[in-house]
Amino acid sequence: MKTRDKILLSSLELFNERGERNITTNHIAAHLAISPGNLYYHFRNKSDIIYEIFQEYEKLVDYYLDIPEDRAITLEDLTFYLESVFDGLWSYRFFHRDLEYLLDSDPRLRQDYREFTNRCLAAIDRIFGKLAEGGIIAPQPAELRSAMSLNVWLVITNWMAFLKTAHAADAQANLTLTELKQGIYQVLTLELPYLTPEYRERVLALREKYRPTLPETTEQSGVRLNAVGGVA
Amino acid sequence: MKTRDKILLSSLELFNERGERNITTNHIAAHLAISPGNLYYHFRNKSDIIYEIFQEYEKLVDYYLDIPEDRAITLEDLTFYLESVFDGLWSYRFFHRDLEYLLDSDPRLRQDYREFTNRCLAAIDRIFGKLAEGGIIAPQPAELRSAMSLNVWLVITNWMAFLKTAHAADAQANLTLTELKQGIYQVLTLELPYLTPEYRERVLALREKYRPTLPETTEQSGVRLNAVGGVA
Repeated sequence: MKTRDKILLSSLELFNERGERNITTNHIAAHLAISPGNLYYHFRNKSDIIYEIFQEYEKLVDYYLDIPEDRAITLEDLTFYLESVFDGLWSYRFFHRDLEYLLDSDPRLRQDYREFTNRCLAAIDRIFGKLAEGGIIAPQPAELRSAMSLNVWLVITNWMAFLKTAHAADAQANLTLTELKQGIYQVLTLELPYLTPEYRERVLALREKYRPTLPETTEQSGVRLNAVGGVA
Repeated sequence: MKTRDKILLSSLELFNERGERNITTNHIAAHLAISPGNLYYHFRNKSDIIYEIFQEYEKLVDYYLDIPEDRAITLEDLTFYLESVFDGLWSYRFFHRDLEYLLDSDPRLRQDYREFTNRCLAAIDRIFGKLAEGGIIAPQPAELRSAMSLNVWLVITNWMAFLKTAHAADAQANLTLTELKQGIYQVLTLELPYLTPEYRERVLALREKYRPTLPETTEQSGVRLNAVGGVA
């Protein structure tokens, strides 16, 4: 493995584990047991490392969300898209954590992220179209489909923050890929009302596999409600 | 107005305008033309100021989301809830911008925010229940209602970040309350499939008032799609 690739891989690891904000280029060099000079030979600064990692993330998602032109998509395709998107969120999880800050620090990244979002929205929209072609959901007017696609995007990109801010008692240490993928339950919830009768049971069964287990949150909410308004 | 309240108000203003991360207690004192010592007499540190501002935000939202016990809710109630929640997001917009960081820095805030989220989720759930009582949406099983409520929350709390990261070409300077309230269009999109025939047209008309105007984003996405796959 080339030093350049090692730097990218270690940076991603360290950013994910400890937060991008807490990691300097010196940490990265020390982690790889190379000199800061050697690191600077490959990357001018941390922003360049982050930018390149983002480009890899983009490439991965674009590859996964390559919707077939010549056929409808199946429930297996849909499962693959959802699993892949959440795998991507997991592998590059530092990125969404501090998105606004990262975009504020790098205009290239801001511009690319905006185009990336638009490509993702277009892909989700096409997935809805292809699901309708495949008879899985009822066809919807273009305008509704695009508002639905945006909601899917908002749910997907906010799920991790929700887990970290509202669910977990102590920050990000506990978050697992399994919990992250429970976001698929929420995404499929968005699609439920549009399912055709033929596919309803199968999608419900698929959704069931991702049911979140949020005992603590639910309990707390129950207690609070009883205390305030007597509603369970 | 007491110095203490002035400190809170100025801090909120400065945090919203320039980002909490860029504002120190010295900035706040200078803005108010008081000595740092005077500020420290009222607040030990910036965390204490943020915590108190959060408590005001909580109080505001709890006040708005006081769902009546003794009657169904109307479409006017729903409009009021939505408008109020987005007004609150706007008034305290620094908070969601840097939420994870703020919660990592203050365990009190983490705990309180978690309880706040649970109260909001419970309130949204009750709104769905009351909308069904009022004949506006069809009644839904508790489990679905709670997954729907979570999606509403995910859409609401992610809308501002979406505008700032994916929509705006240059950071937060441009964001307006009108754009922020276009998030109501997305929230009402979530409710569309559950509307009763009697209310469908009225809710569609309400939703129309908040239709987002995203010409730039849409155009870019169109161009990109044409370049890549010929799909418009």
